[in-house]
Amino acid sequence: MKLRHIIDAQQFTVPMLMELFDRSRAMERIAARGGTLDYQNKVMASLFYQPSTRTRCSFEAAMFRLGGRVFSTEQATIFSSEVQGELLEDTIRIISGYTDVIVLRHSEIGGAARAAAVSRAPIINAGDGKGGQHPTQALLDLYTIFRERRTLDGLTIAMIGELDRGRTARSLAQLLCKFDRVKIFFVSPPEMQMKDDILECLETRGVWYSLESDMNQVIDAVDVVYLTQIRTGRLADESGKGKFAIDAATLQKMRPNAMILHPLPRTVELDKAVDDDPRAFYFQQTMNGLYVRMALLTMVLDQ
Amino acid sequence: MKLRHIIDAQQFTVPMLMELFDRSRAMERIAARGGTLDYQNKVMASLFYQPSTRTRCSFEAAMFRLGGRVFSTEQATIFSSEVQGELLEDTIRIISGYTDVIVLRHSEIGGAARAAAVSRAPIINAGDGKGGQHPTQALLDLYTIFRERRTLDGLTIAMIGELDRGRTARSLAQLLCKFDRVKIFFVSPPEMQMKDDILECLETRGVWYSLESDMNQVIDAVDVVYLTQIRTGRLADESGKGKFAIDAATLQKMRPNAMILHPLPRTVELDKAVDDDPRAFYFQQTMNGLYVRMALLTMVLDQ
Amino acid sequence: MKLRHIIDAQQFTVPMLMELFDRSRAMERIAARGGTLDYQNKVMASLFYQPSTRTRCSFEAAMFRLGGRVFSTEQATIFSSEVQGELLEDTIRIISGYTDVIVLRHSEIGGAARAAAVSRAPIINAGDGKGGQHPTQALLDLYTIFRERRTLDGLTIAMIGELDRGRTARSLAQLLCKFDRVKIFFVSPPEMQMKDDILECLETRGVWYSLESDMNQVIDAVDVVYLTQIRTGRLADESGKGKFAIDAATLQKMRPNAMILHPLPRTVELDKAVDDDPRAFYFQQTMNGLYVRMALLTMVLDQ
Repeated sequence: MKLRHIIDAQQFTVPMLMELFDRSRAMERIAARGGTLDYQNKVMASLFYQPSTRTRCSFEAAMFRLGGRVFSTEQATIFSSEVQGELLEDTIRIISGYTDVIVLRHSEIGGAARAAAVSRAPIINAGDGKGGQHPTQALLDLYTIFRERRTLDGLTIAMIGELDRGRTARSLAQLLCKFDRVKIFFVSPPEMQMKDDILECLETRGVWYSLESDMNQVIDAVDVVYLTQIRTGRLADESGKGKFAIDAATLQKMRPNAMILHPLPRTVELDKAVDDDPRAFYFQQTMNGLYVRMALLTMVLDQ
Repeated sequence: MKLRHIIDAQQFTVPMLMELFDRSRAMERIAARGGTLDYQNKVMASLFYQPSTRTRCSFEAAMFRLGGRVFSTEQATIFSSEVQGELLEDTIRIISGYTDVIVLRHSEIGGAARAAAVSRAPIINAGDGKGGQHPTQALLDLYTIFRERRTLDGLTIAMIGELDRGRTARSLAQLLCKFDRVKIFFVSPPEMQMKDDILECLETRGVWYSLESDMNQVIDAVDVVYLTQIRTGRLADESGKGKFAIDAATLQKMRPNAMILHPLPRTVELDKAVDDDPRAFYFQQTMNGLYVRMALLTMVLDQ
Repeated sequence: MKLRHIIDAQQFTVPMLMELFDRSRAMERIAARGGTLDYQNKVMASLFYQPSTRTRCSFEAAMFRLGGRVFSTEQATIFSSEVQGELLEDTIRIISGYTDVIVLRHSEIGGAARAAAVSRAPIINAGDGKGGQHPTQALLDLYTIFRERRTLDGLTIAMIGELDRGRTARSLAQLLCKFDRVKIFFVSPPEMQMKDDILECLETRGVWYSLESDMNQVIDAVDVVYLTQIRTGRLADESGKGKFAIDAATLQKMRPNAMILHPLPRTVELDKAVDDDPRAFYFQQTMNGLYVRMALLTMVLDQ
């Protein structure tokens, strides 16, 4: 399966997703026995124009588990562009000559596509702008569900929180479109509901969805709760966040085999009391990020 | 010898210290012949919430000399916690899933213990807060003395400088408690003297100590001078620092086989004129940091 | 050929340059077939007191292509010196005990020489201060010309832009002195012309040069155009930069086999329309930086 750049989640067809999930599972087995793969001559550049220790660690650890090497910059903006007015395109042309794959976190929507247009090496988008794409997060979210349920068809999911600007929820919704009989509840304060572009996409694909503002109406009906943070300052009354939060009481209402996912970091919406519940999958989800990123790296490096 | 986390210096018993020193000596031999060990599939995370280029380099070089790989962040605070309110515990849960050992420099006392409570991988405390613990510094200080004297029993040492907030002097004093017939002179401005918690610990163990404010009274009576920095602004009169400084004149009064140690960085308290004196051990001390950290990494990774 | 430290461009004799160019060419072949060399036990410290993502990536990728390992700090100033008043000399003494070679970008002229005076490991100067040295840039510039023309004798070159403070143009001029029948046009606003120290050096060596302020007078007469940025604020009228810029119109006047070089990053002086011209060598130039740095690393590590 040819894969040049990884720019957005939508570029993945169902067969590509299935290949990715197969490879991710294989990577999990390799990591479990402490092995590495044969990529010791490959160099990955980790080019982050915005901070994200977790995402960067996940990619860099993935490259290390493959046996490869990593050039890393934690704050590319401060260190080149801002200082001397360097163009993203020139930076990418140069860095892509030195390395075999570039993992790029950029601050502007479309940054990864701009990079891919000039790069000599594959670009993996590690997030470009609020409301932009973060495809590897969406892919690991999807894999986490797939890994437990063995299928994505027939899934009923509630996405909860700040949905209008949440790129993880947006991307996941777009990926779920590709499967059959999926039902999505979007649960958020009305002013933060999922935007029309995604809703139109769902309608085009015939995916059932419902806009909700009360979690309690749907929590007992879903296989997966996908919880996201509401950023400080967006709600006039901060205490209103409680309506979009999960705690011990919410757990009571959920199905016994439901899964709770969260892209992390969390704030008040996800109580620590939930951590020990067997339905809490958010730390497994971050582990799956390692395997999915290992798999994606092999897919772009194997060409 | 089982060693899960390295949180504070006191956790090391005398037999553990002896094993550590044996391993450190072996590491020195391996490094001298340019070899590496068989840890190429191991990944260390270097998670620094406070700056320390030297300590970070020492740990990362140690991991490289073992053959391993390193994920590094120079300023974790800016890049995750502060930006999005991420919890230390969640960060550690996630990063410890991606890596085999975490070296943590945190800004709060107790940060390393909090990390250890939730981590899937061993935590090595690389300093947690002013006045907190910095066990690997204390261990390399102790090893530097042991390596020369072949024993720590019967040692007479003067600790000089800002002792109340100096975590290196505090930790070293606690480690020296474990040996026989140790005598400690604490030499500092009265308002910066070693705190009662350490003094009580010494009394409990029957260690002889004396509180001094004039270095000249004791400098000719000690095997080891352990010098530390007095931070700017703590003395009403900055020129008063001279009373707690070593220069060519002080060298005259010291024993011919005494050792001068300093955790570095230095300011006025340690004149460059001392550098060429055979009793100056502070650069050897930093080299020993490499070997001690290699040894500690093997001790937690070998489980 | 013995090479301990790489501090300035002038230290390279013509035979050393020829050895460097031979090795660089060999490195290009090794990199092209995706191989690495046998330096897996070697550790390079990348110690940057000033930001430069491109230069740092070039050095670190070079070390990775040799099989080696890298300790990296993106902003050493913030992380040690400024915070605690650490001396450059002490930092170098310590870091050079942990590593096999130090690549140093310092903020003060003479920083690399100060480091070399105390270092246990080879120092490679990756730039020390505005107007200071940046020898590896000058060497890769020279190699880029040599690689195409197979000789540097008889070269006619125009150096254009802010020449008084441009360390790359200064260093390149000094290196070109070593070859026969070189002719240099210095083209810049009069207040930014090449300084007397370099001009005197050229006169001593009998190198022909001419001070110009109009690019159009010379552009059709040169083998190489070496273009540099004019920093914002230096010209009273920013639009005056156009006189020292290359665009499609300028290309018309240039010789068909001329080469356009630029150390990058660029601003208005180098139009993107030039990128597709076969005479544009500035991205090849950055690639050559990888090979030259691989070669330099082998030269200091092979001792």
